[in-house]
Amino acid sequence: MASTVRERMEQLVLATQDAVCRALAEADGGTFRETAWQRRDGGGGRSRVLEGGTVFEKAGVNTSAVWGTLDPAAAQAMGGGTGLPDTGLPFFATGVSVVVHPGNPMVPTVHCNYRYFERGDGTLPGSWWFGGGADLTPSYLFEEDVRHFHRVHKDACDRHDPAFYPAFKRWCDEYFTLAHRGETRGVGGIFFDGLNDWEADDLLAFVAECAAAFLPAYLPIVERRAGTPYTAEQRDWQLVRRGRYVEFNLIYDRGTSFGLRTGGRTESVLMSLPPEARWTSDREPRPGTPEATLLEVLRAPREWV
Amino acid sequence: MASTVRERMEQLVLATQDAVCRALAEADGGTFRETAWQRRDGGGGRSRVLEGGTVFEKAGVNTSAVWGTLDPAAAQAMGGGTGLPDTGLPFFATGVSVVVHPGNPMVPTVHCNYRYFERGDGTLPGSWWFGGGADLTPSYLFEEDVRHFHRVHKDACDRHDPAFYPAFKRWCDEYFTLAHRGETRGVGGIFFDGLNDWEADDLLAFVAECAAAFLPAYLPIVERRAGTPYTAEQRDWQLVRRGRYVEFNLIYDRGTSFGLRTGGRTESVLMSLPPEARWTSDREPRPGTPEATLLEVLRAPREWV
Repeated sequence: MASTVRERMEQLVLATQDAVCRALAEADGGTFRETAWQRRDGGGGRSRVLEGGTVFEKAGVNTSAVWGTLDPAAAQAMGGGTGLPDTGLPFFATGVSVVVHPGNPMVPTVHCNYRYFERGDGTLPGSWWFGGGADLTPSYLFEEDVRHFHRVHKDACDRHDPAFYPAFKRWCDEYFTLAHRGETRGVGGIFFDGLNDWEADDLLAFVAECAAAFLPAYLPIVERRAGTPYTAEQRDWQLVRRGRYVEFNLIYDRGTSFGLRTGGRTESVLMSLPPEARWTSDREPRPGTPEATLLEVLRAPREWV
Repeated sequence: MASTVRERMEQLVLATQDAVCRALAEADGGTFRETAWQRRDGGGGRSRVLEGGTVFEKAGVNTSAVWGTLDPAAAQAMGGGTGLPDTGLPFFATGVSVVVHPGNPMVPTVHCNYRYFERGDGTLPGSWWFGGGADLTPSYLFEEDVRHFHRVHKDACDRHDPAFYPAFKRWCDEYFTLAHRGETRGVGGIFFDGLNDWEADDLLAFVAECAAAFLPAYLPIVERRAGTPYTAEQRDWQLVRRGRYVEFNLIYDRGTSFGLRTGGRTESVLMSLPPEARWTSDREPRPGTPEATLLEVLRAPREWV
């Protein structure tokens, strides 16, 4: 019987990977390749990727459980956990991360990540915390899809605390912001970090419920949109939007920064990057077009449920 | 008659942009589009881009002259200039930046940038400095091309100080390193920053000579390779290498960071990004192939002249 929070979170992480890969492979018809890797200073991970599928141009589902000693830069990238001593930086981190880049521009890109951190043995106040969330990044806006994605995550949150969804929805919009573009990366979802003000068991149950919400939040959207015909111009717009995705992940994303600085496996850390992206200068869409409609929402995030 | 170093550097910057655009447009047959922009807090720039040319898939040639007050983060990104007071952060910066992404994978990507900074009015010791350099990023290695590029820049350096080229060649290899990949971005060239230990006039003459070396260093390579036939697999490898270029610019490049943080025009700052890039997981080439040969050089930089 699993006992520590560490152990149970690791089990949740691995079970989530299995469930998500199974469902995505079934929706696509393709198969995931797995690479197991070990980290010299402690721990390792299991990376799975499906590339060139019929529905998913690239889907990466990664897990890791790593431990060791943080240098100060990595400690800063790790974030969360207030009130910890600055000295003594042993750490433990485990998480599961999903990024799906569909081929069809009408099917949104999606990301989710659930993670648990400890410094020391996790017994000091503030020395352990949970983080996570899920967010949707369409190239074309279908409001019913966005409402569905938010609704499923709101329901998961509400079963634990009605204050969660409004707070984590706002946090998501703030976190996934490209300041240099004045845009959010996508239409949001939920995001939280440094959660440790409840019993660890209760937070673990909350995180498990969020992780379980991922497939029912996303797969119905895939089913609804995967057969939509699209033009070369719409594909081009998708590739431009993917360029923004790359910009966010490499400039702002704390998980990417943490992964690269703690000696995570580079190919796994960067599996979030799209298979293909484009940068075309001064690509402002004409007012009234579907492309302009998307940008309006990215520049002024809305409430969806 | 121009008097201050600021003014003469601005003239050099604008003249370099004109000369480079004229020569690249002639080599390509296409034309540059110009966008002039102004910065709210002082200054502005002139961005020129040629997209979808017969030789150059994208060529960006930007100039800017900006001034105002630095916040501490931007001051850190600015770098250079040791021994300055931490308080009082008015600044002036001007520079020219060239990035060329050819369509043919046998023609290397190239970048150069020459810049001048001042804090305050530039009269305090260490309160002004020059930076710059030029570097080559091939997808396929042609040793004679790399030797030529280095030779032209070494000659320019040697006319000012025989110690420059060896120091700036090494600095270039160090600066353009993707630590998370264990690779340099390309095969180097020269890089220097914070130069202020000579008379400003002499350093301006040195920088002018380097800027003038750009076209004779690069254009003969374009002429030699632009007609080389290539396969879809070679184009794919080029797009994967361009993904590394994106990684460097967004994760490590100080100019990009400085530009985005000081309110430079985003489209101009990010004009260095390639028109198209790819990320394919675990893309390690088979030993003995031309792709593997390139990686060997990127993992263990060589002397070229």
